Amino acid sequence: MSQNQQSYHVAVVGATGAVGQKMIQTLEEQNLPIDKISLLASKRSLGKKVSFNGEEVEIKEAIPEAFEGVDIALFSAGGSISKKLAPEAVKRGAVVVDNTSAYRMDPEVPLVVPEVNEKDIKEHNGIIANPNCSTIQMVAALEPIRKAFGINRVIVSTYQAVSGAGNAAVEELKEQSQALLNGDEVNAELLPVKSDEKHYPIAFNALPQIDVFQDNGYTFEEMKMINETKKIMHLNELPVSATCVRLPFFTSHAESVYVEVEQGGASVEKIKELFQNAPGIVLEDDPNTQTYPTPLSAEGKRDVFVGRIRQDMDQSNGFHLWVVSDNLLKGAAWNSVQIAQSIIENNWLKK
Amino acid sequence: MSQNQQSYHVAVVGATGAVGQKMIQTLEEQNLPIDKISLLASKRSLGKKVSFNGEEVEIKEAIPEAFEGVDIALFSAGGSISKKLAPEAVKRGAVVVDNTSAYRMDPEVPLVVPEVNEKDIKEHNGIIANPNCSTIQMVAALEPIRKAFGINRVIVSTYQAVSGAGNAAVEELKEQSQALLNGDEVNAELLPVKSDEKHYPIAFNALPQIDVFQDNGYTFEEMKMINETKKIMHLNELPVSATCVRLPFFTSHAESVYVEVEQGGASVEKIKELFQNAPGIVLEDDPNTQTYPTPLSAEGKRDVFVGRIRQDMDQSNGFHLWVVSDNLLKGAAWNSVQIAQSIIENNWLKK
Repeated sequence: MSQNQQSYHVAVVGATGAVGQKMIQTLEEQNLPIDKISLLASKRSLGKKVSFNGEEVEIKEAIPEAFEGVDIALFSAGGSISKKLAPEAVKRGAVVVDNTSAYRMDPEVPLVVPEVNEKDIKEHNGIIANPNCSTIQMVAALEPIRKAFGINRVIVSTYQAVSGAGNAAVEELKEQSQALLNGDEVNAELLPVKSDEKHYPIAFNALPQIDVFQDNGYTFEEMKMINETKKIMHLNELPVSATCVRLPFFTSHAESVYVEVEQGGASVEKIKELFQNAPGIVLEDDPNTQTYPTPLSAEGKRDVFVGRIRQDMDQSNGFHLWVVSDNLLKGAAWNSVQIAQSIIENNWLKK
Repeated sequence: MSQNQQSYHVAVVGATGAVGQKMIQTLEEQNLPIDKISLLASKRSLGKKVSFNGEEVEIKEAIPEAFEGVDIALFSAGGSISKKLAPEAVKRGAVVVDNTSAYRMDPEVPLVVPEVNEKDIKEHNGIIANPNCSTIQMVAALEPIRKAFGINRVIVSTYQAVSGAGNAAVEELKEQSQALLNGDEVNAELLPVKSDEKHYPIAFNALPQIDVFQDNGYTFEEMKMINETKKIMHLNELPVSATCVRLPFFTSHAESVYVEVEQGGASVEKIKELFQNAPGIVLEDDPNTQTYPTPLSAEGKRDVFVGRIRQDMDQSNGFHLWVVSDNLLKGAAWNSVQIAQSIIENNWLKK
């Protein structure tokens, strides 16, 4: 840690995971003032080396002592690791950007999508939560509409990639797809939820379950979208409902979003204009040239892509959007790095 | 054609297509009183033989004269063939069950899902239209709710299989999937719409375009769902909006359906009860045992499967459903054969 905070010691927890790898890559590309990086993971990965800014960095074990001297720690190693180690990192003076669901709904923890509520970061008590991937891209698309017209209802149906369930799910989709194409038997051992009793094939299929079921019949993924949207947008009374579906593609989530605006005067043209000027949003919408985003077209990009904007057939204040973004980037790694960057630029390390 | 109409001469037009093959198979399984079958297709397929009830039947060319003596003709060879040949079949005394969009919105033509509006069949003037696949399964699921509570709003987002675009699309998905798994270049030549200018890969992707775009920004598939639902349910003023998405699986469409009921008293439990007693519907809904339908689980079955029934988080008269059905069976062949069977059983051949 440099004396005048011109340069930072950053840690990545879960450095070998799907999101962790993207965090390291994004930190590198973003060229933040990092003078030391600690790449932390479970014992299994000890001794592995990962390249960062041209140097080989050895993976170290994620234990409390590993956070000595760390300024900013990006966590993406599962909720139980965050619960155990994030307070240890904070105790040692680090600010944690946590990409698990462990602290998202904690009233003491800001839940941040910089394009929507960047200023909430400075209210942190050591931990800032990164929202769920499917929530981030939706609120990024809703925010310009909220600002211009207010919103009073959201209904979303999602089309989510397997990489949201980690590298093992990516492998499972590959293996099952090849088995099915060969006419071989298909093994399902992971999706929809590894710890659940039943597993169903994802290859050439659609699974209307992401994360475990809650008592109200919604899945935890659906409840994350519902609750996190209200918290991020500071709209506790906003009606939001969600149906979340896992699909056989590797990267990027897509969402069919229905939104009702509060004030009159909204139109497809005006909403397109809003998106053309909104940070982090790319408008890809022209039926005449079959222009719309798809999971493949969004892969590897940091923006949230919006297309298929239509007024509802009957409700003049209702609009339908098709929102696509790379779930590992804006949905996870890039949003976390954006938060880290904002902390650095605004000097929000300490309250 | 037998003297007393105890036995029927049936024709299948488009006998070599994805739906035509299922029609032949379903007619066979259903054991209808058929004493002669004419299997018709384009010149390309002449001389091919298809087995029906243990006999090899030669494919004949679909020309006006081929309908001499035919009682019931099932069409599934594209709208232009239906426009040309359905009137020729009718002129020769046949009743046409047409599985294209050619006549669906014609006010003189009944548009029928037997579980919803079977009695409309008898109003026919020679042609009865089979609705679009994605419409059929949705109205079959909505009808029990409409009967019990009335409905006043529908919003649907679809998850549709490639077989809805024919056998060539099934091959394209297979080839692209294998190429992607091999790390080879992917060729896209057919989807989303063969005649459109641009083609996008469907393998490991999602395409928010099914059929061509209309002037209002909706696709023709979306407008089919919107307009056909109103016609079949005799609810011309019902607000319906749709977002239709093509996905990388072979068979069965899935739908995330939001429906608002008119009267109070509806609950998840009551709606489940309705589905348990509704014709053609199978309830598969138990979060405790991860029970819900998927495209793979519905494949090869004639029913419409419903699961994930939830009350909206905020709108007490709003409910979310996950509706899945084999697009080639209930969505096409089986619904057409049901109509043919109804014509026979009710003696609705002549008005």
